[in-house]
Amino acid sequence: MTVDTADLALTPATLADPLPLARALIRRASVTPRDAGALDVLQAALESLGFRCTRLPFGEGEARVDNLYARLGDEGPNFCFAGHTDVVPVGEGWTVDPFGAEVIDGRLFGRGAADMKGAIAAFVAAVARLLAERDPRGSISLLITGDEEGDAVNGTVKVLEWLAEQGETLDHCLVGEPTNPARLGDMMKIGRRGSLNARLTVYGAQGHVAYPHLADNPIPRLMRMLGALIERPLDAGTEHFQPSNLEIVTIDVGNTASNVIPGAAHARFNIRFNDLHSGERLTSWIRERLEVAADGGLFDLDVRVSGDAFLTPPGPLSALVSDACEAVLGHRPELSTSGGTSDARFIKNACPVVEFGLVGRTMHKTDEHVELADLAALADIYHRVLAAYPATAG
Amino acid sequence: MTVDTADLALTPATLADPLPLARALIRRASVTPRDAGALDVLQAALESLGFRCTRLPFGEGEARVDNLYARLGDEGPNFCFAGHTDVVPVGEGWTVDPFGAEVIDGRLFGRGAADMKGAIAAFVAAVARLLAERDPRGSISLLITGDEEGDAVNGTVKVLEWLAEQGETLDHCLVGEPTNPARLGDMMKIGRRGSLNARLTVYGAQGHVAYPHLADNPIPRLMRMLGALIERPLDAGTEHFQPSNLEIVTIDVGNTASNVIPGAAHARFNIRFNDLHSGERLTSWIRERLEVAADGGLFDLDVRVSGDAFLTPPGPLSALVSDACEAVLGHRPELSTSGGTSDARFIKNACPVVEFGLVGRTMHKTDEHVELADLAALADIYHRVLAAYPATAG
Ligand SMILES: [Zn+2]
Ligand SMILES: [Zn+2]
Repeated sequence: MTVDTADLALTPATLADPLPLARALIRRASVTPRDAGALDVLQAALESLGFRCTRLPFGEGEARVDNLYARLGDEGPNFCFAGHTDVVPVGEGWTVDPFGAEVIDGRLFGRGAADMKGAIAAFVAAVARLLAERDPRGSISLLITGDEEGDAVNGTVKVLEWLAEQGETLDHCLVGEPTNPARLGDMMKIGRRGSLNARLTVYGAQGHVAYPHLADNPIPRLMRMLGALIERPLDAGTEHFQPSNLEIVTIDVGNTASNVIPGAAHARFNIRFNDLHSGERLTSWIRERLEVAADGGLFDLDVRVSGDAFLTPPGPLSALVSDACEAVLGHRPELSTSGGTSDARFIKNACPVVEFGLVGRTMHKTDEHVELADLAALADIYHRVLAAYPATAG
Repeated sequence: MTVDTADLALTPATLADPLPLARALIRRASVTPRDAGALDVLQAALESLGFRCTRLPFGEGEARVDNLYARLGDEGPNFCFAGHTDVVPVGEGWTVDPFGAEVIDGRLFGRGAADMKGAIAAFVAAVARLLAERDPRGSISLLITGDEEGDAVNGTVKVLEWLAEQGETLDHCLVGEPTNPARLGDMMKIGRRGSLNARLTVYGAQGHVAYPHLADNPIPRLMRMLGALIERPLDAGTEHFQPSNLEIVTIDVGNTASNVIPGAAHARFNIRFNDLHSGERLTSWIRERLEVAADGGLFDLDVRVSGDAFLTPPGPLSALVSDACEAVLGHRPELSTSGGTSDARFIKNACPVVEFGLVGRTMHKTDEHVELADLAALADIYHRVLAAYPATAG
């Protein structure tokens, strides 16, 4: 493999500092599904530390996405750092080059700085530091996808299938998503709510507003049906989860004529749900509620469950990360299940998984950046996790 | 004025048959705001019968629309036939040339055949027949606009203003709209419901579905506000009017992201209302109901009243037309206030007005057509109206 690493000196000493690798990764404009050389840069760094790397491209044509699995060591247990090199589109209004990886006033700017090329560089720095001290006990692996911000179809899911086929076991996993809302060490994610998207089309009969008896307006029925779904809260929350929540994200009829009763009306809604529900049971509940409220009216419903709620209950893994955090920052992170989804929803089927990374305040926004101090501290925390593993997370 | 009347012989005998003039008018593709020579054809026919014609173009640029006022005689009372030469767009799917004015199996096909070039030709035929018998008592006039199917801004409203400025009085008016639902003589309109269009925008605060407490979804509030408007029927109808009716014609949010709570939601609704309401009072009622249901939420409301309900109570004018109808067809039309709006809503301020024309079944549709028998019978009916005027409608 020939890699353009002109901007990255591949020495253990250089890699022990997360900044050069983070900058080299940000300079690859890897907007999903493009890789733009980001995985090549990472693989070169990992190989220089002794990792065995396997590239795992999945999907066809435009949707083809590259992934990387890297392992150092043959023994168990296998501690896995998971994450993604793909980034969301830049959008407008940046005051710096989104792929320039500029350092200004102690901050590293660029798309992916927080979500999550900075954390990937911190993974590598933690390993480089450990290797400067001793050989790892067990194995250390990296599961890095290029399809987290996109459809997440040709990424982590398929890599996990491939690992299972190879008989490759992950024992514990730390996902490097930017879990901290405002300050490094604020929050670790020990689970996530489930998420479900639904499209609803309600049919009526088109006609003229002057002759309503010859038409059947689907809009009041749609309102009644959606009303039946949001009438009562879904629940009041559980020990580790916020209350489940349904949001109607859009209603669209698209009728431009003020004297025409439309023939159909469309809506979409999203439910973020806790461990009191499953996507399957919620789908049945939605359909039943809508059938009743439709009162014989015709409708189409398409429900996609993008993930069920999951939880790695507080235990050895979360304690391992909390201890490391406390040692570096002086405080323990809140254990939370709030916020959006991540690939942890797939990894939870393979092994216990927690998420802890940088501060996410600017993720997906203009002028995305991280504090250099946070980047250094995160590499410290990850290093302490590896140093203590597997003693406390058996 | 030089008119291409190659397809129309301007003799009283030819004009006494409505068909040639109807065909000549249909051949002018006068889709609002275009005139395409339609008014020239009509004016040449009216001048050949002795009418004094005044062309009344109003509006600027693209919106400029031509209109025609024609009067025969100087004395009162002045009986006015009112109508429009403009037509709605053709649309797709015709099996004949929409401007070919073809006669097939006893039917005249073409855009405007029913709405309402056929009736205009019947106006002229009725006058030609009367003049073959005797001089008219009082005056006969035609008020023809080219802006009925459009915004109706530069048509009848402005012609009526001009007439008032000239001291020109209309004493009774018959509008030739296609009032018959299925069979000639079924229905006369003696009034129309009012109509009101409203645009509602409800504001919230955009955000991510995973963090609903940081956002404010405007959709449930919009549903609640619209629900407050349709909760109860507006009324149960009156002696001459159907119940008033509110139709929500569209809701549009236009949010394409399933994980985003939108910042605003839009809706439009139309009210057709009877003589229990005025546009002004309904506007206040809407605003009050929405204020309560919005519960402090921000919204924009834009209401346009396109006409209040009006009624020419059954009396001499409706009797005049009913008698003529019965004499020709053997039955009296139902006196109705149903259906859409027409320019009668403006004329009602000038004098008693009723509407009676052809069968409207195919108006605004593909293959618009009228029965030749209906066209002939309508000319007969209009002729009998003129022959009996002013004796019975004094
Ligand atoms: Zn991410
Ligand atoms: Zn019309």
